[in-house]
Parts: sequence; structure tokens; C-alpha cells
Amino acid sequence: QGTRDHAPAQAALRDRLLSAVVSCFKRHGAAAIDTPVLELREMLVGKYGEGSKLIYELQDQGGELLALRYDLTVPFARYLAMNKITNMKRYHVAKVYRRDKPATTRGRYREFYQCDFDIAGQFDPMIPDAECLKIVHEILSDLQLGDFVIKVNDRRILNGVFAVCGVPESKFIPACSTVDKMDKMPWEEVRSEMVGEKGLSPEAADRIGEYVQLHGGLDLIERLLQDPKLSQNKLAKEGLGDMKLLFEYLSLFGITGKISFDLSLARGLDYYTGVIFEAVLLQQDNEHVEEPVSVGSVAGGGRYDGLVGMFDPKGRKVPCVGVSIGIERIFSILEQRLEASGEKLRTTETQVLVATPQKHLLAARLKLISELWDAGIKAEMLYKKDPKLLKQLQYCEDTGIPLAAIVGEQELADGVVKLRDVATRQEVRM
Amino acid sequence: QGTRDHAPAQAALRDRLLSAVVSCFKRHGAAAIDTPVLELREMLVGKYGEGSKLIYELQDQGGELLALRYDLTVPFARYLAMNKITNMKRYHVAKVYRRDKPATTRGRYREFYQCDFDIAGQFDPMIPDAECLKIVHEILSDLQLGDFVIKVNDRRILNGVFAVCGVPESKFIPACSTVDKMDKMPWEEVRSEMVGEKGLSPEAADRIGEYVQLHGGLDLIERLLQDPKLSQNKLAKEGLGDMKLLFEYLSLFGITGKISFDLSLARGLDYYTGVIFEAVLLQQDNEHVEEPVSVGSVAGGGRYDGLVGMFDPKGRKVPCVGVSIGIERIFSILEQRLEASGEKLRTTETQVLVATPQKHLLAARLKLISELWDAGIKAEMLYKKDPKLLKQLQYCEDTGIPLAAIVGEQELADGVVKLRDVATRQEVRM
Repeated sequence: QGTRDHAPAQAALRDRLLSAVVSCFKRHGAAAIDTPVLELREMLVGKYGEGSKLIYELQDQGGELLALRYDLTVPFARYLAMNKITNMKRYHVAKVYRRDKPATTRGRYREFYQCDFDIAGQFDPMIPDAECLKIVHEILSDLQLGDFVIKVNDRRILNGVFAVCGVPESKFIPACSTVDKMDKMPWEEVRSEMVGEKGLSPEAADRIGEYVQLHGGLDLIERLLQDPKLSQNKLAKEGLGDMKLLFEYLSLFGITGKISFDLSLARGLDYYTGVIFEAVLLQQDNEHVEEPVSVGSVAGGGRYDGLVGMFDPKGRKVPCVGVSIGIERIFSILEQRLEASGEKLRTTETQVLVATPQKHLLAARLKLISELWDAGIKAEMLYKKDPKLLKQLQYCEDTGIPLAAIVGEQELADGVVKLRDVATRQEVRM
Repeated sequence: QGTRDHAPAQAALRDRLLSAVVSCFKRHGAAAIDTPVLELREMLVGKYGEGSKLIYELQDQGGELLALRYDLTVPFARYLAMNKITNMKRYHVAKVYRRDKPATTRGRYREFYQCDFDIAGQFDPMIPDAECLKIVHEILSDLQLGDFVIKVNDRRILNGVFAVCGVPESKFIPACSTVDKMDKMPWEEVRSEMVGEKGLSPEAADRIGEYVQLHGGLDLIERLLQDPKLSQNKLAKEGLGDMKLLFEYLSLFGITGKISFDLSLARGLDYYTGVIFEAVLLQQDNEHVEEPVSVGSVAGGGRYDGLVGMFDPKGRKVPCVGVSIGIERIFSILEQRLEASGEKLRTTETQVLVATPQKHLLAARLKLISELWDAGIKAEMLYKKDPKLLKQLQYCEDTGIPLAAIVGEQELADGVVKLRDVATRQEVRM
């Protein structure tokens, strides 16, 4: 349940998608690493907040207690700490596992690919953070998924908001996970969860509401930097200062048009410590030129400066920022689009079919195809002793093979091969 | 235990290796499929013989009882049966899991990659089987691993041998798994296991010994086809007839020089029904020109005509033959060779570092690198506001970046970029 086989057409589409993502990661100078699907259970404990209950555990068959990885970020942090690496730019494309309620039509599976790019190291503020946003912008533009917006916020700004609204520090994380639901439910419901389940005072909730419904650009950052309450809070001030710097860098990258500073963005995971972001695709309303409708998140990430320290025996921190591309949702969109277009994706790359028009010529086919393979040419033949020529040409048409190399009795006698263009039926002897 | 992280240098080497293998599979017209790492436990039961106890099981957390796949062949057969596919040529490169005793220096891990190529369908005999052997030959030649031999046998010949030596049919499988150990221990020990543990009569064991110590080529096949006892056995006769045909096709492929018909080859898995084969690397003895020494199996496979039927509710069979490339052992060899050579593999593909020679030029770097990325050029910069030029050039040398694009105050004023060849220190303004 919640997993799927990829048939050849799907595997080919996925290959195409993953190589677009990987070539962007390589364009930004990232190296690949690979870590096991299995991690020690204790490594995953306490890293994912409410997600922890979705971790797949392996049966105790003697030996270590294991679990399947839940994401690629925690294994990366574990890898850095284990190898005492303080500086690295890496990508990792691999499957992760969550015992979640599957919603396969929306691209939510229990086994799914993640494509992560992360930068670890102590650097000048916001330079690597800006690059992560640039990467999201490049990938979503390359894939031509339609209009999108990248929402940006900072955990320090959110925590500052909570503080100046009178929320005790012990309730920052629950308040944050409630704010995180603002893209799925109206403010009134979020407010009532804050007051009811999370135990905030109605006044605090109302004050939070005034902030977290704001979104904008540099103007909003400037306004909040002047906000009489928020500007007094150290964390918020730091966050806003960095946000301003981030916008400066993004404007040099020429991508601020797709960026929205959005105070309702909270992100579910516990480990974020600074900038957070999430890209959503927009669907233009056909009838009216109104506010575009979000069709879901396709990339997300942020800064997590404390995670590596959790795996280091001495707690040494390595600041990190990274992005994860939500490949499954993008795959669903591309798959639906391909289906709608009626286009048939080739699942093989075969260049030529080696064919014979008469019987008793298997040996000639085997000799020729072997020469082609040895010359690096992608070639196939039918696995029959005496196939009909029509069947052989039909196979080319069915699978998209553009050429047939035909050896008949005449060609053998003349020491030539007849090369046929399957589409135009033109033939040359060579 | 028995798993490993791949650091960038290892990941780069593995990438290179896997793409050599995959490009061979594509050259032979195979399509890719992908199946989940998780399978229903019941699907894996009874397919692996003695290997079954090595299957990783997931904890029962409610819902289905799951296990990690043990190989890629059983999931392929399950996929064919589930989708009622009777004809397919596919490859699959992915990780599999075995709770085996790890021997990491020899490349034996609990999580490891398999690279499988299989042909499913009802075809004329030995044509797809011969292609599988051609593939092994191509890959091992391409990778320049040194001399190798591909041992070939047929389960029908082995069973015929057991029958004419007086082994009851119920003991064919245990006898087969004992013969399988002949590459690891001398015949005397194999014989004593047959008589002791497996309960064969000493006479039967001796008679078996006379056969399974034989190896050769077409001459041996001809001799056994004339063997007074073996030629009377229906199974053996079929197997020997097909073996003769296989050698005919392999000779058209020009590869019989590396093929050895070896009656001691048995292969561990239960599901093989016909041709079986295994490639081993040979190490030339330095001092004498004697028999070469085997350094281990690097590919194996065979025909399994009954496996798909085990997954079909009506037991409909789909004949299959396939090969699995033992990528881990090959990886270990290449890794050791790389270490010995002192060659440093680049782990990134960055073409140019964007650098500045003076302070306060971060904006210029950000603008230029953004243009390069948008033009599809692989570019990096240091994540510092004001890095020293020497540090930037040092970074190029450390990571193998061939070019530096330098923008200083003068270049900005002139509207040019200085492009520097890191190795030769030559510069051009452009």
C-alpha cells in the first residue's frame, strides 16, 4: 500500500525528470553522496516532531535495531558528524519511507524519491541560502511547470512574533506547527486550534493573527523592521535583517519576482533554525484575473544549524542550509500532462533492428548484431529463428526504432547490408 | 553493520561504473523498470532456498507484513505476473538487502547494488540466453578488469547427471547445493558432504565426481552427447543439445574463447531451470604460466522458466533468462586500483569559479554567476563576502576547477571578465 511499480514509460519519464534536477545540482558544484536506506533507530528519534510516528521500523532479528530513513537530511547530518566534515556541498537523490496515509492521486506515497541539495559550513550570512532559492527557481523554470511562487520566512522571525504576542517559549513549537496549517485551513480554524488544543490565550492568538496573515516583499521587511514591538525583539530583528540581505542577493539573481516573504510559512520539521522556504505551483483562474490558486508545494527547505551537533559526541555544530525538490508531485503533474498530450515516450534507445527477409539467416543476423554492439551501436533483433520481415518492421514501429539493417541472401552474396529508414521506407545498400 | 556511506569520491566512481553497465543494457534494447524496496513477505517466501533466512523483515506496525527485497529477480517475476506481461526485456539497477555475514573487504555487504538484465518471453531456444552471455562479455571487457572466464552449465544436465548416478529425485536440490561449493573446496570435501550431510551413497558420489570435475568446450559437449549413460537421460540430452546450440551462437558472437562448459557450476538459487552461468576474474600467476587463479565471481545468471508462474493465480508460466552483474566486487577492485594509482577522481563537474580580486565586489560575483548558471554553465563561488584571490584560486586547484572568471574593479569599469586558466595561469579578457 502506498508504493508503486514504475513501468518502462514511467521509469523513462522519471529518469528525464531526475536528470533535469541532478544537472541543476551539478551546475551548482555539488558532489553526490550515498547513504544506506537503513539507519540505526536511535539516529532518527527526536528529529521529526510529529512525523516520528511515521517511521518504518525493522523487525528485531538479532543485532542492531534499524529503521528506514524518513528523509535525506538527517542521514546527511549523521554523515557529516560521523566523518567530522565541517564543509560540504552535496546532493543526494534517493528513496525515503513514511508510514503516512497515502494519497496517490496527489503524488503522496509511502516510498518516494527525494532530491536534496545542501550546503554545510560556516559562511557569510545568506549567500548559500540565496543559492538554494536560486536552485528552486532554476528547476521549476526548467521543467516548465507553469507559474509558481517561493514563499520565504525565518524561524527566528516567527519565534519573535510569538514572543512579542505573549506566547511562553515552551509553546513556540506547538504554536509553530499550528501556523504551519494556514495554507490548508482558514485563519479562524487555526486560531481556534491555537486557543483550544495548544492552550494559547485568545489575545495572544489574535495578536499572532495580525502578523502571520502578512505577506509581501522588501517593503514588508522594512515595515516590520520599524514595527514598535517586533523591532525590540532580538531574534526577530536578526531574522528581519537577514531577510533583507537575502532579498538583496535574490534581486542580484533577478528572481525576486517569484519570491514572497510570507509570515504564515512555518514548515513542519523541528530542526529548522533560520530561513525556511517552500515553492508552490499556481493555477491561474480561467474566468477571472484574481488571486492565483495554489496547487501544492513542490519544493521546500531551510536552515538547520543545530542538527549536525545532535550527532556529534561533543555537540560541535555545523551550520547547514538545504532544499528538497518534491519530485513525486512534479512527476504526477508531468505524467498527467503526458497522458493528456497523447505523446508516447520511447522506453528504449535502440537505434537499429537487425532483420532478415528470408529463412535460414539467423547466423547472419547474429554476426551482424554482434558487430554493431561491439561498435557501440544500440541494436536489437527478434529472438526467433525465422521471423517474417513484416513482423520485424512492425516491431520497429511499435517501439520507435528508426532504422532496420536488413541482410538477405542477395545482400550476403554482395557483401552489403540494406539500411531502411522505417518511417520513410527509404533504403540504401551499404 | 554491513552497510556503508559513499563519500563523494566513491559515489563518483560508482556512478561511472553503473553508467558503463547501464549503457550496455541500453545497447541491447532493454527498458528500465523500478519496483519498491518493500515487498509483501509472502512474495519472498520459498524462492531463495537456503538464502531465505537472510531476508530482512519489517516490524509489524499494523497493516501489511513487509520485507526488504532480497534480489531484483523475484520482484521482476512478481511484476510480470501482476501485470500479465508475457514479453519484456528490462534492466533494473537498485539496492537489495541480505542479513548475511558481511565481508566488506571482499565487497560483501548487507545492502548492495544489483544490476540486472532479463529477457522474458517464449522464444526460439538459446537466442536470448546467448545474448545474456554476450552482455557479460561486453561489460567485463569494457571495464578492463583483466582476464576472465564465463562458466556455463545447465540445471537439466546436472539433474541428468544426478539421475544417471543413482541419486533419487528428492535429493537433486541438496546435491545441487553441495556441487555449488566446488569452487570453494576440494572434491574430497564436497564428496564427504554429499555422503555425510546429504545422505548420498558413496558410489553415487563417486560417479557424480567423475562428471562434475569435467570442463571444456564444444568437444566436451559432443563427448557427453555420446556418453552411454547420459545420452539415455531425457533431461541431460535436452540440456546438452541446447548447450551445443548455445556454443554455436556464442561462436557467431566471437566469444567462445572466454566460455567454459563447466559441470561443477550449480548456482545457489532454487529457481533456475535451464542454462546457468557465472563469470569469474582470473589472476595470472606471476612466476609460472600455470592454470590461472580465480579471484571471485563478478556476474551470474541463468534461465528460470517457472518463477513467474509461482506469482500467477492460474500458474501461467513466462520463460525468463537473465543476468546480474556483481557490481560490489567490481567496485572494490576498481577502488583498490584507483587508490594504488594515486589518481584523484573529481567529485564535481564545475567548469568555472567566479572570483574577485578586491573587496566589496560580492554583488558583481552574484550577478555574473547567476548569468553563467542561466546559460547552463557549471559555476561556483566562495560563500564569503570578501575572499582573498589566493584562496579562490586554491579552491580551484583543490577541487579541479579548470577556469576562474575574475571580475575586479578594472574589469567592472571596462565591462569585461578576465578568464584565467588555473593550470597554465594564462589569462584572457573577454
